[in-house]
Amino acid sequence: MRLSLNQWTTRAWTVEQAVAGCVRHGVESIGLWRQDVAAQGLAATAALIGEAGLTVSSLCRGGFFTAPDQEADNRAAVDEAAALDAACLVLVVGGLPGVAPGEPLAGFSRDLPAARARVAGALRTLVPYARDKGVRLALEPLHPMYCADRAVLSTLKQALALAEPHDPAEVGVVVDTFHLWWDPEVFDQIAAAAGRIASYQVCDFLHPIPQDVLLARGMMGDGVIDFAPFTEAVLAAGYTGDAEVEIFNADLWAADPDDVLALTKARFAAHVAP
Amino acid sequence: MRLSLNQWTTRAWTVEQAVAGCVRHGVESIGLWRQDVAAQGLAATAALIGEAGLTVSSLCRGGFFTAPDQEADNRAAVDEAAALDAACLVLVVGGLPGVAPGEPLAGFSRDLPAARARVAGALRTLVPYARDKGVRLALEPLHPMYCADRAVLSTLKQALALAEPHDPAEVGVVVDTFHLWWDPEVFDQIAAAAGRIASYQVCDFLHPIPQDVLLARGMMGDGVIDFAPFTEAVLAAGYTGDAEVEIFNADLWAADPDDVLALTKARFAAHVAP
Repeated sequence: MRLSLNQWTTRAWTVEQAVAGCVRHGVESIGLWRQDVAAQGLAATAALIGEAGLTVSSLCRGGFFTAPDQEADNRAAVDEAAALDAACLVLVVGGLPGVAPGEPLAGFSRDLPAARARVAGALRTLVPYARDKGVRLALEPLHPMYCADRAVLSTLKQALALAEPHDPAEVGVVVDTFHLWWDPEVFDQIAAAAGRIASYQVCDFLHPIPQDVLLARGMMGDGVIDFAPFTEAVLAAGYTGDAEVEIFNADLWAADPDDVLALTKARFAAHVAP
Repeated sequence: MRLSLNQWTTRAWTVEQAVAGCVRHGVESIGLWRQDVAAQGLAATAALIGEAGLTVSSLCRGGFFTAPDQEADNRAAVDEAAALDAACLVLVVGGLPGVAPGEPLAGFSRDLPAARARVAGALRTLVPYARDKGVRLALEPLHPMYCADRAVLSTLKQALALAEPHDPAEVGVVVDTFHLWWDPEVFDQIAAAAGRIASYQVCDFLHPIPQDVLLARGMMGDGVIDFAPFTEAVLAAGYTGDAEVEIFNADLWAADPDDVLALTKARFAAHVAP
């Protein structure tokens, strides 16, 4: 299984620097973030990727379907994924309507079933557009601690049920070790996801959880996750894509990105690769 | 449905003060914690409870089956639950072996399936002892953010599977809104838990999550949970016990416990009672 660098693992780098870093370290695949692509320029990013001969394993991200007026932005995300020939557009579906990450509660909805229905409806609306552009959508279940503010989609089983009405070539799922490691059904669900796995993302779950729960992600080997069973299960399910290392971590972001990428390669070989 | 005060909602109170508080506020049921019972004295606590005519809706807690040498302490917990005539002994099953709440990782196991097997084995060992003492054990699934350090039991479905080999009168489950609100299957599982629900605990899930994730619990109405569907589901499943309000919250712990109990009663009536 091939390593892909999600660029937020080396967040201090611009797209241009991350592409150069991948080339320098012999990494052949990269996961990009829309805001960084925008800062570099979409056409310039596509040109850099092409010149370097990199695969784009994912574009992060679309979704937030429970927010008002999300449709135009999601179409733009699809357009960008198409322009970058990304293997998938990752969708973080959004939390309870009106609940914003980091913001105090005010004027929000507690109706979780309704939020989930809204997600399913918005997905149905987006699929034909993505199909026309040749972009595969990838539903990402997030750890339940992000249910209120980021994703009312919490398990792989739930993601598969949401994807089920759609062609697997058009709507896949993301298997992210950080979000799913605790789930007693996760290996059964990975087997059930055969043909639907659009992205395999790896990073560790830190203990104790740091003050900003978004930054509870750690370098593989620094947390509590046993990666080998995940890699085996994803491969057994027929996944042929890259393993994308995506780590949001304050200490890694403060370190020299070249050191972080070298460490990523070493830890990937020791913990994740089969 | 009757309100029970879990004494850690008014944590500054001793057992004696909490019992008096319940009497003063017309609360007829209380959930006790072992360390506070020990500070008061077991026989003294039983006498106070008897004089006040309170029900003990639960004793918290036994479990931590993944730690070494847990057996003697769990038998002591059973004895205490019997002495207090508690409706159940709550079991928090423990996390990965060697992972301690709040402590850095060192010398621990990442083998989650093995930890779960260890829990099932230790439960089998404890059940006959509890049966002899007439104590009902109550398996509590905890929010997945506590999987590493407190409970490798994360969903109600998983708790029901763990309880399944045992008589429902001997091994039940805890339905705690804080831990389960995000689970897309929770209402189906509550229906499936008919006859197994030993305790219904309520408190809200705060947003944003505070620095100490253990204190992400909030007064009903202060967080993101819609309580009415939980109360309806628990009643529809045939639960006839109390609804125990258990809130770990730094602001509430700093407030006057009488004010907290008055607020608890008001919020319970507004959000939780059917």
